[in-house]
Amino acid sequence: MSDTRRRRIPRPVREQLIIDAAIGVFAKRGYHASSVDEIAELAGISKPMVYLYLDSKEGLFLACLRREAERLVAAFRAAAGPAPSPELRLRAGLLAFFTFVTEHPDSWVVLHRQASELSPAIAAELAQTRRAVLAEVSGLVRICGAESTGPARPDDEADFVAYTLVGAADSLTDWMVLHPDEPPERITVRLMNMVWVGMRNVLDGEVWTTPAEEG
Amino acid sequence: MSDTRRRRIPRPVREQLIIDAAIGVFAKRGYHASSVDEIAELAGISKPMVYLYLDSKEGLFLACLRREAERLVAAFRAAAGPAPSPELRLRAGLLAFFTFVTEHPDSWVVLHRQASELSPAIAAELAQTRRAVLAEVSGLVRICGAESTGPARPDDEADFVAYTLVGAADSLTDWMVLHPDEPPERITVRLMNMVWVGMRNVLDGEVWTTPAEEG
Repeated sequence: MSDTRRRRIPRPVREQLIIDAAIGVFAKRGYHASSVDEIAELAGISKPMVYLYLDSKEGLFLACLRREAERLVAAFRAAAGPAPSPELRLRAGLLAFFTFVTEHPDSWVVLHRQASELSPAIAAELAQTRRAVLAEVSGLVRICGAESTGPARPDDEADFVAYTLVGAADSLTDWMVLHPDEPPERITVRLMNMVWVGMRNVLDGEVWTTPAEEG
Repeated sequence: MSDTRRRRIPRPVREQLIIDAAIGVFAKRGYHASSVDEIAELAGISKPMVYLYLDSKEGLFLACLRREAERLVAAFRAAAGPAPSPELRLRAGLLAFFTFVTEHPDSWVVLHRQASELSPAIAAELAQTRRAVLAEVSGLVRICGAESTGPARPDDEADFVAYTLVGAADSLTDWMVLHPDEPPERITVRLMNMVWVGMRNVLDGEVWTTPAEEG
């Protein structure tokens, strides 16, 4: 692409091209080993222009984190929102998550297991992302809880369930790497199978008792 | 403590003192911002001696990771091993985990959410730790599965359940930070409540079906 043609690309589009390139490089090399030179070259944009648009390597990484976190939350919400029951909303939300991870593996590498100590700004962004994801899932669980013959502190229970679900889904993305042929649909069904009944128990305030020690 | 008295401490004991100090500093400041000076001072040992014993800041961090990972796995194993049934073993193992996190918060900060890109050696050690924890939990789940009217691929199912449990427990340690008064016993019961029935479903090869879309 010639310089003349490049200049015709509007800034918002060019920023997205830079972020696309950056996600690929950050996922492949990690934050520290990534160079803005490589990202600029891959995006077909000069290095000074990358700095002009996104300020620094840190700014670039933050832009990647933000865009992909927003996409993930949007995919979850779009899938879960229209489903006709809480149970199906949860299924649809989990499926959207596992599908996102399958279809955007580089994005997931950038979002997943990032060091909160890369920089204070990155730590803040990661904490914010995690809070947004947990709030989304917790809200969905709360809807499930509203149907149940509930406990005294439904919000607290919903948060507990949300942390459990988010952690489980997070960890299963590592399992997916070892089982690349397992489709998102099957992973979703297995996780639903494992958590749905138990989640209802927790939201209903039921308590598991140790069989040998009690009664 | 005077230099003369310090010299009487045998090397293995002194190494443990250094690691104790290092865990506190790494947990408080993060890997990058930690200084060997501060660790040496806190341990009451000269900086050259820290380097002599543990080679480098990276060597120190690796020693911390290794020791605390071994302690965590040992605590899990010691608790889970003697329990009289698979169900109680799982309960005991989870309780040991949440108790460890409560009693050794600094150790958990060092083990939890570390950047796999701090260095290749640290990445390898973290991957190794995670594999060891997953193998331990998966072995326990397999025992639970042996009792069940099993599926075709019990090992594969046990791994799936283990990733789910480890991820859930991992994530709940963040929830614990927001609920410092919640005792490990109650967290264990809630998690057991949430996963026990579902785990049996998965190990029995039962499949959750979407109520509105099927049947």
